[in-house]
Amino acid sequence: MQNFTFQNSTKIIFGRGVEEQTGEEVDKLGDKILFHYGGGSIKEYGIYDKVMDSLKEEGLEVVELGGVQPNPRLDLVKEGIDVCRQEDVDFILAVGGGSVIDSAKAISIGVPYEGDVWDFYSEEKQIQESLPLGVVLTIPAAGSESSPGSVITKEEGGYKRDAVSEELRPEFAILNPEFTFTLPEFQTASGAADIMAHVMERYFTHEPEVGFTDRLCEATLRTIIKNAPIALEEPENYGARAQLTWASTVAHNDLLGTGREEDWASHNIEHELSGKYDITHGAGLAIIFPAWMKYVHGEDPKKFAQFTSRVWNEETNFDSLERTAKEGIEKLETFFERIGLPTRLDDLEVEVTEADLVEMADKCTDRGPVGNFVKLDKEDVLAIYRLAN
Amino acid sequence: MQNFTFQNSTKIIFGRGVEEQTGEEVDKLGDKILFHYGGGSIKEYGIYDKVMDSLKEEGLEVVELGGVQPNPRLDLVKEGIDVCRQEDVDFILAVGGGSVIDSAKAISIGVPYEGDVWDFYSEEKQIQESLPLGVVLTIPAAGSESSPGSVITKEEGGYKRDAVSEELRPEFAILNPEFTFTLPEFQTASGAADIMAHVMERYFTHEPEVGFTDRLCEATLRTIIKNAPIALEEPENYGARAQLTWASTVAHNDLLGTGREEDWASHNIEHELSGKYDITHGAGLAIIFPAWMKYVHGEDPKKFAQFTSRVWNEETNFDSLERTAKEGIEKLETFFERIGLPTRLDDLEVEVTEADLVEMADKCTDRGPVGNFVKLDKEDVLAIYRLAN
Repeated sequence: MQNFTFQNSTKIIFGRGVEEQTGEEVDKLGDKILFHYGGGSIKEYGIYDKVMDSLKEEGLEVVELGGVQPNPRLDLVKEGIDVCRQEDVDFILAVGGGSVIDSAKAISIGVPYEGDVWDFYSEEKQIQESLPLGVVLTIPAAGSESSPGSVITKEEGGYKRDAVSEELRPEFAILNPEFTFTLPEFQTASGAADIMAHVMERYFTHEPEVGFTDRLCEATLRTIIKNAPIALEEPENYGARAQLTWASTVAHNDLLGTGREEDWASHNIEHELSGKYDITHGAGLAIIFPAWMKYVHGEDPKKFAQFTSRVWNEETNFDSLERTAKEGIEKLETFFERIGLPTRLDDLEVEVTEADLVEMADKCTDRGPVGNFVKLDKEDVLAIYRLAN
Repeated sequence: MQNFTFQNSTKIIFGRGVEEQTGEEVDKLGDKILFHYGGGSIKEYGIYDKVMDSLKEEGLEVVELGGVQPNPRLDLVKEGIDVCRQEDVDFILAVGGGSVIDSAKAISIGVPYEGDVWDFYSEEKQIQESLPLGVVLTIPAAGSESSPGSVITKEEGGYKRDAVSEELRPEFAILNPEFTFTLPEFQTASGAADIMAHVMERYFTHEPEVGFTDRLCEATLRTIIKNAPIALEEPENYGARAQLTWASTVAHNDLLGTGREEDWASHNIEHELSGKYDITHGAGLAIIFPAWMKYVHGEDPKKFAQFTSRVWNEETNFDSLERTAKEGIEKLETFFERIGLPTRLDDLEVEVTEADLVEMADKCTDRGPVGNFVKLDKEDVLAIYRLAN
């Protein structure tokens, strides 16, 4: 086990009706609020009104900025920074899923910074300060509600890049699983894939002596595998929604990675895909992760056999761990298909040429090899894109 | 799943050599330090010197108070409060196991309080403020290094009572698993029982829709069951020690109880035992927990069958979940015996009479019934003491 430091101080407020506490929590931290959100769905389903009522009840001043798209854009972030400066905003409230939260995080570090906020995503500058930020979550997927990361897309050049800093960790996150009842099936399924990917990026490591966190990872994966299909069949099943929601936060709150070398190749490889074709991140991961597994499992068939045995409850073939390893990969792929996700680039409604694959592999590795389980250079990434085709 | 609020901001610094960071962490929070510890073992094994060196390197002023006993006493707490006031101490560093930490916590709330610090343990007063507190851990067991609880024994009357407040949560905890290499076997085993008990107090609940935290609990229990025997056979096995240490903290950092109604009857029943006979808390739990299980499992054989199946990997008897439930209880008892713990009052080197049992049952329930899985009154508690005899 590696040495580590773990501290996650985000206050999680979880359950039915907890959005009523939003105003009270915000009031401890700010006076003038940027209410940041996406499209019309939070208005359609009454979430907007509930949160706004709670803010108004505390007499808080609110400025609004909606319009965050999936794969949130730098342009809107810059608009948000301008609004906050003009209006003297001192707290940002993100009401939505990972895209809204990541956009809000980018605004929070952009306001006190004189240069171009993209500097933090291109790794030219280190984050020094931020406005405080809170979250009302509507999609369990990204885990951004208590993570120190933010992913933003710069349309010019189709770059999708992340920034990581303790300054990006939200002060609080309000999680009402009922807010997820109305999610479209594809969003629920993509969220499930995203959660599983966050766990698997940590699970596949050569680090020894990590049996405890291995088991915590397996517990989280089994929770998603059990509850995602239930949530799809019965969208208003509170238990299934609640477990997906809490597992989604825990999957990405740093606990599962403690003491481990994490991988993150699949996320990097997927970012090129959603950066270029604007597909849903979780769906992109459902395509990339199995392909990555097919490419790398030979590096440690034992670890993959453990995945097959403990996560999928399959018997181990002691004559061929390799076979057992492959069975787990198939199980994962079949699961993604069962919940309605694409598992091949072909399944997407975009045309992907060999030249596109080369371009993405190039861009993905332009800052060096990706991943730790296996360090992947351009040729490796290209091979994975081809396996996903 | 119940609504919940979860926030644990204790900074965990984990691994080989991390005690070197003690001074740096303390320096952020205080200038004059009470260095609180137990007996001579931290001096014998060099821990005292390492920590003291780190404090001195930052130029911190240090006042010492050793002598904390297992089942820490109110008298020493009061001495510590006096020392802190006389010396203008502004930060308390606990170097030791759960007893030292709990004693330090009591001092931290006693210093700014004008009345008798026992008021917080007798539930006459609510905790309002505290001195900041840090921990260098030497025994994985109590989980007090990131918990909001403290248990103190008042010798007069043999009362062992707890206080719970966010004010009691340490600012940081330094966890070097190597510090546990020299633990006596009985301490390692008792620690394992304490960790398991912290998980099981949360695991056994009638609350529905808690499959995720059920699985996190099972993952933690399996980690202890696997690693405690290894640590006993190979005291310097870093992997086993590291996993026991980290699991010990996670078992009691509130995560495993999120959304659940917790039980805590066994802890209350055990407190009378260690309050009266000064036995090791974990060993007391190894006696009480199986007895509690025998008494209550009929309330929900399904939950106990799940325990048998998932924690002990035993086949389920679908014709008799009751039988499967009992098998899990036997497995637990056998495990405790295997790691060298007592499982009956008879195994203790003290004489326990029927009149003692009645007295303990009386005291245990003097503030009302204990437990939530089954609410236990005096007669129930007495029956459990008898089952443990």
